[in-house]
Amino acid sequence: MDEIIGFIRDSIMKYGYKGAVIGISGGIDSAVVGKLAVEALGKEKIFGLLMPERDSSRDTIRDSKLVAKFLGIDFKVKNISSALRAIGTYKLQPPAFLIPQTIKEKYVKHKWEELSSDPFLDDLCNEGNDEFRRGLAYYRSKHRVRMISLYLEAEKRGYAVLGTTNKTELLCGLYVKWGDDSSDIEPIRHLFKTEVIELAGQLQIPSRIIEKPPSPDLIPGVTDENVFGVTIDDLDKSLRRIEGGEVLDPHDTKSMRVLRILESARYRELRNLAISRNH
Amino acid sequence: MDEIIGFIRDSIMKYGYKGAVIGISGGIDSAVVGKLAVEALGKEKIFGLLMPERDSSRDTIRDSKLVAKFLGIDFKVKNISSALRAIGTYKLQPPAFLIPQTIKEKYVKHKWEELSSDPFLDDLCNEGNDEFRRGLAYYRSKHRVRMISLYLEAEKRGYAVLGTTNKTELLCGLYVKWGDDSSDIEPIRHLFKTEVIELAGQLQIPSRIIEKPPSPDLIPGVTDENVFGVTIDDLDKSLRRIEGGEVLDPHDTKSMRVLRILESARYRELRNLAISRNH
Repeated sequence: MDEIIGFIRDSIMKYGYKGAVIGISGGIDSAVVGKLAVEALGKEKIFGLLMPERDSSRDTIRDSKLVAKFLGIDFKVKNISSALRAIGTYKLQPPAFLIPQTIKEKYVKHKWEELSSDPFLDDLCNEGNDEFRRGLAYYRSKHRVRMISLYLEAEKRGYAVLGTTNKTELLCGLYVKWGDDSSDIEPIRHLFKTEVIELAGQLQIPSRIIEKPPSPDLIPGVTDENVFGVTIDDLDKSLRRIEGGEVLDPHDTKSMRVLRILESARYRELRNLAISRNH
Repeated sequence: MDEIIGFIRDSIMKYGYKGAVIGISGGIDSAVVGKLAVEALGKEKIFGLLMPERDSSRDTIRDSKLVAKFLGIDFKVKNISSALRAIGTYKLQPPAFLIPQTIKEKYVKHKWEELSSDPFLDDLCNEGNDEFRRGLAYYRSKHRVRMISLYLEAEKRGYAVLGTTNKTELLCGLYVKWGDDSSDIEPIRHLFKTEVIELAGQLQIPSRIIEKPPSPDLIPGVTDENVFGVTIDDLDKSLRRIEGGEVLDPHDTKSMRVLRILESARYRELRNLAISRNH
């Protein structure tokens, strides 16, 4: 923990940033990064941005305010719905998004799964039909608008943007290119999700934040575990074993799922790197 | 030229893209990339996006339409002013932006220069006063909104986003982080600006596009040469000599300017890379 706090402090000083901006989603990763940043720089040098939009879960605002207050930092709620409307994101949505939240969650989750037998892998591999692709364009633009909003707040203050991607998300490709992967400082990119959860306990993050199921909060009702198709515990266990050089059992369904995710994420990574003739 | 056309075709096929989207600014780089892409994939697989906004030069739309028609591709004009307003970009502008274009150009250019003795280097080095920083946040968010708009069009079609950054811009840092540097395929990143101009002649790009002074079209009246403080010819000459291993004359003002730009651009690059503990 002290190492991460030192890393944040050093990075801010070394590159002349005057403080840091963090997007607070109400999830555990941004709560942990926020708390580490407060420890590193002091709460008066951290600015929090809460960016709900039309499709955000009812709990998002409540939980993100809880985190901002827990951190004791200055923050602003900026609803990004009007920006998404202006950019054209909402034009891509199925009409189901207009119906009430609880029905919506069930409907949209079902709809998303119906469009593809494996939405997450299709997403990583650039596959899927027209309607599925519209869904990809739709959800990715949300994280990108959040990125722009964070930079607007950061750059006018001379602050850095703090990223909140963890190693599990990074290895498995659970991030949006030029969206939540785009920041100035990434304090927890070397930690598995289960390590972030452990750290959250040590940092005394409110239990409601630690205990709720992790979710990208991009498509109503879809949690991280829905996306991955395995539990976070199983996922991290497999990732650690692979990192340790173990060969996973090819007869174990969970292990094979993890290997397929890694393979698809690696394909996307290669695609992202192969952008110019110099590579 | 054939090599670049082959590179575009191979990249598109290898990663399963169905075509490519390009942002057409009316400048020479996007005209050249557009033409190369048409040669590689056929004009029916290229979609052009023209993204003027409130502060765009009067010539921008005219020139970008000229290029789109020259390419013979399907295109759309999407004014991004409402998105920029919703995101908060225009709130950062000085009132001068409301006055007529010609006066505006003179005023804003003067204003920009007044805010900093060396706006481009301050920009690269994260320096400058509050008003200058608001200017940075202001202009950078424009390129980022363009990036999001390009991805929205690309992802719903399963297309790639073509980047238009050249080697001169890349080396000197004339690009916006998570803005115009963010794409799927960069066909001219290995070419100096003067080489792009040469290629434009071979590709028979309309002469009006080749001959107009290159400009980022982000701050009214500010051209590439204003930004760099040397002519493109002098800049590229120095860059080629450095690449060839020559030591530049420390008594030559132009050479020293180029070295200072490179040093600042390198500083920014290091800052951009130093985002996680793994680096």
